[in-house]
Amino acid sequence: MPPPAARPSLAPLFDPRAIAIYGASSDPTKIGGRPLDFLKKSGFDGPLYPINPKAPQIQGLQAYPAVAAVPDAVDLAIVAVPAPAVLAALEDCAAHGVRGAVVLSAGFAEVGGPGVAWQEEMSALARRTGMRVVGPNCMGLINVRRRLLGTFTPSAAGFGLVPGRISVVSQSGAFGGYCLSLIRQRGLGLNLWITTGNQCDVDVADCIEHFALDAETQVIAGYLEAAADKERLFHALALARERGKRVVIMKVGRSEAGAHATASHTASLAGSDQVYEGVFRQFGVLRARSIDEFFDTSYAAASPAPLPQGRRLGVLTVSGGVGALMADVAADVGLDMPPMPEDAQRRLKALLPFCGPRNPVDMTAQLVNDLTLFERNFEVMLQEGRYDVIVAFLSSVGQVTELGRGILEQLQTVLQRFPDRTVIATMLASPEVRQMFEQAGVMLFDEPTRAVRAAGALVHYGQQLQKRGAADAPPPLPAGALPPPAQVVNEVEAKAVLASAGIPVVQERVAASEDEAVRVAQEFGYPVVLKIASPDIAHKSEIGGVIVGVRDAAQVRAAFRTLRERAHTHAPAARIDGVVVAQMAPPGVETILGVAHDPVFGAVLMFGMGGVFVEAFQDVAFRVAPFGVAEARAMIEEVRGKVLLAGVRGQPPADVQALASAIAALSVYAAQHADAIESMDINPLLVLPRGQGVLALDALIVPRSAA
Amino acid sequence: MPPPAARPSLAPLFDPRAIAIYGASSDPTKIGGRPLDFLKKSGFDGPLYPINPKAPQIQGLQAYPAVAAVPDAVDLAIVAVPAPAVLAALEDCAAHGVRGAVVLSAGFAEVGGPGVAWQEEMSALARRTGMRVVGPNCMGLINVRRRLLGTFTPSAAGFGLVPGRISVVSQSGAFGGYCLSLIRQRGLGLNLWITTGNQCDVDVADCIEHFALDAETQVIAGYLEAAADKERLFHALALARERGKRVVIMKVGRSEAGAHATASHTASLAGSDQVYEGVFRQFGVLRARSIDEFFDTSYAAASPAPLPQGRRLGVLTVSGGVGALMADVAADVGLDMPPMPEDAQRRLKALLPFCGPRNPVDMTAQLVNDLTLFERNFEVMLQEGRYDVIVAFLSSVGQVTELGRGILEQLQTVLQRFPDRTVIATMLASPEVRQMFEQAGVMLFDEPTRAVRAAGALVHYGQQLQKRGAADAPPPLPAGALPPPAQVVNEVEAKAVLASAGIPVVQERVAASEDEAVRVAQEFGYPVVLKIASPDIAHKSEIGGVIVGVRDAAQVRAAFRTLRERAHTHAPAARIDGVVVAQMAPPGVETILGVAHDPVFGAVLMFGMGGVFVEAFQDVAFRVAPFGVAEARAMIEEVRGKVLLAGVRGQPPADVQALASAIAALSVYAAQHADAIESMDINPLLVLPRGQGVLALDALIVPRSAA
Repeated sequence: MPPPAARPSLAPLFDPRAIAIYGASSDPTKIGGRPLDFLKKSGFDGPLYPINPKAPQIQGLQAYPAVAAVPDAVDLAIVAVPAPAVLAALEDCAAHGVRGAVVLSAGFAEVGGPGVAWQEEMSALARRTGMRVVGPNCMGLINVRRRLLGTFTPSAAGFGLVPGRISVVSQSGAFGGYCLSLIRQRGLGLNLWITTGNQCDVDVADCIEHFALDAETQVIAGYLEAAADKERLFHALALARERGKRVVIMKVGRSEAGAHATASHTASLAGSDQVYEGVFRQFGVLRARSIDEFFDTSYAAASPAPLPQGRRLGVLTVSGGVGALMADVAADVGLDMPPMPEDAQRRLKALLPFCGPRNPVDMTAQLVNDLTLFERNFEVMLQEGRYDVIVAFLSSVGQVTELGRGILEQLQTVLQRFPDRTVIATMLASPEVRQMFEQAGVMLFDEPTRAVRAAGALVHYGQQLQKRGAADAPPPLPAGALPPPAQVVNEVEAKAVLASAGIPVVQERVAASEDEAVRVAQEFGYPVVLKIASPDIAHKSEIGGVIVGVRDAAQVRAAFRTLRERAHTHAPAARIDGVVVAQMAPPGVETILGVAHDPVFGAVLMFGMGGVFVEAFQDVAFRVAPFGVAEARAMIEEVRGKVLLAGVRGQPPADVQALASAIAALSVYAAQHADAIESMDINPLLVLPRGQGVLALDALIVPRSAA
Repeated sequence: MPPPAARPSLAPLFDPRAIAIYGASSDPTKIGGRPLDFLKKSGFDGPLYPINPKAPQIQGLQAYPAVAAVPDAVDLAIVAVPAPAVLAALEDCAAHGVRGAVVLSAGFAEVGGPGVAWQEEMSALARRTGMRVVGPNCMGLINVRRRLLGTFTPSAAGFGLVPGRISVVSQSGAFGGYCLSLIRQRGLGLNLWITTGNQCDVDVADCIEHFALDAETQVIAGYLEAAADKERLFHALALARERGKRVVIMKVGRSEAGAHATASHTASLAGSDQVYEGVFRQFGVLRARSIDEFFDTSYAAASPAPLPQGRRLGVLTVSGGVGALMADVAADVGLDMPPMPEDAQRRLKALLPFCGPRNPVDMTAQLVNDLTLFERNFEVMLQEGRYDVIVAFLSSVGQVTELGRGILEQLQTVLQRFPDRTVIATMLASPEVRQMFEQAGVMLFDEPTRAVRAAGALVHYGQQLQKRGAADAPPPLPAGALPPPAQVVNEVEAKAVLASAGIPVVQERVAASEDEAVRVAQEFGYPVVLKIASPDIAHKSEIGGVIVGVRDAAQVRAAFRTLRERAHTHAPAARIDGVVVAQMAPPGVETILGVAHDPVFGAVLMFGMGGVFVEAFQDVAFRVAPFGVAEARAMIEEVRGKVLLAGVRGQPPADVQALASAIAALSVYAAQHADAIESMDINPLLVLPRGQGVLALDALIVPRSAA
């Protein structure tokens, strides 16, 4: 995929030398007064120029009628004038060297009417002049290190922000403001913060890209309602991955009511949530499903601790009960909890006879009487348990500052010898203890199950990076691949296309007459399957259009007649090309593979298990085409029904490797012909026992023109 | 089920007039010194008598050598002497009128050795004397209203507890202590608190029963590792339900590592976690899976607000994005979010042109400029949306005390007109605002998705009460029901037992010869199914022991021979009773119904969908036998595969009513013969289209003696 055209940097927005405030007001509770008030009080380190033609001074600063009158180079403008006056202000800015503008004013596309056209003109202006425009109808932006509060959200009042390694982008202003309150409440370190509102120019993808290039950012935490531009979003996510930035995204709209709420909220066209889920997995994005999870995951991702090398979790606890609870949640999030080696268990028992030495390792409440138990247990777990990540539950030990400090010192001493391990402490802690851990770069949670979930997120993220580390290039498209048909064709022709694209199909031929059917059957060898051949009948089996186990010439003739009668009865208007005579497929596991056209992401692949799984459980995985075999394997891993491929009820394991190759091959074909294909369905794609490959038994291709 | 024998009340433990402390120490950091220190400082309102033969005074109070020497009637003893001296202290107590003792000392069954016998003698003493004994190896108990801190957990230091309507019982002392810290941190109202430790006498069930009878308790929050006595647990849970108490239970050990941790921790025999899950559903217990959920659910359940009458959720929000997120979580927890009526949407639009009026109703950040928007939107939602429960997200409005007060006043004004509705407010709030809401009895959460989850818990709880409100008596056992066989019998005999118990079975007969098989087939009419009849072959289809679609006499003879050969080849040692000739079953949905013997709960029923669903997804529901048709329906509702019963792929809906009747009938039979049955399997139980009933196609009964 070629990189999208580069756009001017967002640096003037986040890192301006001087700021002009259009519509600056003397009333610090007004939308035009608040940013100036905030900037003055927070101590922004550059000059501030209120723009207001009606007053000589605003909030004690000299005011100017326009940026042209300012005797200084201004690089950022904050615009809070009424909607009808915004465009003129922006023209003024662009004409006088301003390189970034934040439009706080509302009354544009979100309300309709003339606002729609105004917003379009703002987009055009940004494209034409290269001045980057945030908003309109947004809450502005913040750069904590510069003490730059370019926002009017009440959540920013009093600053109260600690510099850190998390940068936040929110498409929703209200969500962004709420986040800011929570960031302050939790004392999380913040670097940059921005809300994009109506996104006339700067969108979420731009901000992800900017954060990916920003040296102070380690975690990009985003709230997304809908992507505007697939290419730029992918480019930004790929860049973040390449730069080692960790991306945590809250994407709402999983449910029908949720999607409705988003649509009415932003009037943007949302792709299917399952497709977004696929995109996030494809790009190694950590998805959050609650606000706690959004912050817990961001906090863990911002830690200087190394990412876990594997999924082995050790739990060290002062409560057997809480340890068991943590083990339950570890299983929920797919972490392994192997027991300590027998030898090490004996050594732990020697340390403390009443402990539980297995895993969880239970130090019991005895820890309070002998704090060194922690260090000794912890070391044995790292040394002999070889856990990739350890979560330690210490109840309320951290409420006593001295005890909390003692635990931290022990942790640091031991970790010096095991710098490749990840550790999360969990305890109720005093603010001083919390700060000590923060400064030491050791993760500290309140709630043990949330700590285990955060460990799970880090583990999955680390594994994803490892997997994707190996190049997973899409396979080449076979030289003789046929173009997609211009019309809907029968399944035999559809399978010929698939075969040309590298997907194995069942041996079969259309027979126009009984005699021909018998000849074909004899050529293939009995038993055979007979099916109606029609481009107009998508679900043949529902009208009895498939007859299996046909064993001799007489049965072929009878089946041929029966199928024609059924087609005539149930689908009198359908075009009938004859009857397909096919090899009887060997036993295998039925899967479904499909291609759909997503309004945002273009050609997307869908994979699921066959039979009722897709319909009954919506148990499917999506990815955006094209991708390689490793990504295809990840798709297979994702569906719950994959257990069927491992061989249940005494069946042999299925050929998952061939399945992954077929999925990747189809993704390449679908991407190549994205504009020509509305949908493709291979149902079933039969997966034979390991080493025997896959067979497409039925297929349907719907060209875009025919949709 | 007859009620278990009544045991003496726990009232002397929680509500004593005077307390003696055995092993009282002058050092307030020692296990024997801490309770006395706590009781003095917290201001317990009764007399305290330190018992220590070595000192005339302890912590400024006169000490006594034994309770016999105390010149007062003592009803509670706290015992903190070394393990070998505990029994003598208890004897002394029981002999001198003490009616309750809390043994904090450790060194009993949990460590083995002589401690095991000591603990058994303590149990015997409690039974013999009627003095109730808590522990040993426990953290003690608390009665907040009496300011009674009968515990040595550091979490109780400084008291800091607010009287409330939640009572807590924890089998784990460490978990109990951690809970106490969290209760203080969150400012939750607490009534009684107890940890049961080794449970030599008082166990979790006793405490649930006591709380159920306690007027000040509305919510019983329990941490359970394993139930000791099914009858008493059931009695306590039933009593709680009858008294309108809401029970929230954290039961750990869902995962293998978790179960292992619990087992090594308590050495008690844990029943299968899925069986506990069934018990909790059967008794209307709210199960928590994280500590946040434990407290969130307990907090919501303790609210004076009415339980929701239905599952209609309205979301009122200041952020479209957070509203969408809440809608997503509402879908996850099974709440409905119907849109506002069109008319009402127009009225809301008139109030605020840019609002989202559907549901979520988005007031936008405009609320901050016009607080009365809340009242007006809220009222329209209650009046015209007719939502059973409304969750309102107000961002950080509550951080400004005046705004928080304003919201509360509006809420209360409107709620006076809709006293049957449930409302949860969600916002960041100052401690003053939090307290105002607490005093007004209005639920206030920080995190909107947790608020929606809590709403979900209340809705499901309310619905469970409504369902169970109608009497759901187990059906009567049919008069001619046969006893379970003493040996494993073939499937025909097994189905005869089922038929006698009221479960419809397929028409079939065992044929000993080819001729007989042909005669039977002609009597039933073709096509028929032939199956090996053997008590020793459990999974016939795996050895090819089932031949379907047999259409004439010649095919019957051939199939008969084939089956005998296969049995001979694959199971040469199996007893062969002949071949079963059965009606070919009509099309239907395959399900699996089973009975197992659980070590704690006795006869339990298992239900799941047939085919690979049970093996691939462990998608099953459990209940303890016996139960009625409503409970059976709840089991069916619980499995994800139930969608197959609704009719997928153009199939007609299945006869769920007949299925529920069959499940209830089997539960009655299983309970009646619990001691004689190791397991029963009906696989498949075929569910025919609505109105046509069910058919057991295959069955296996394993008597306990034969297991």
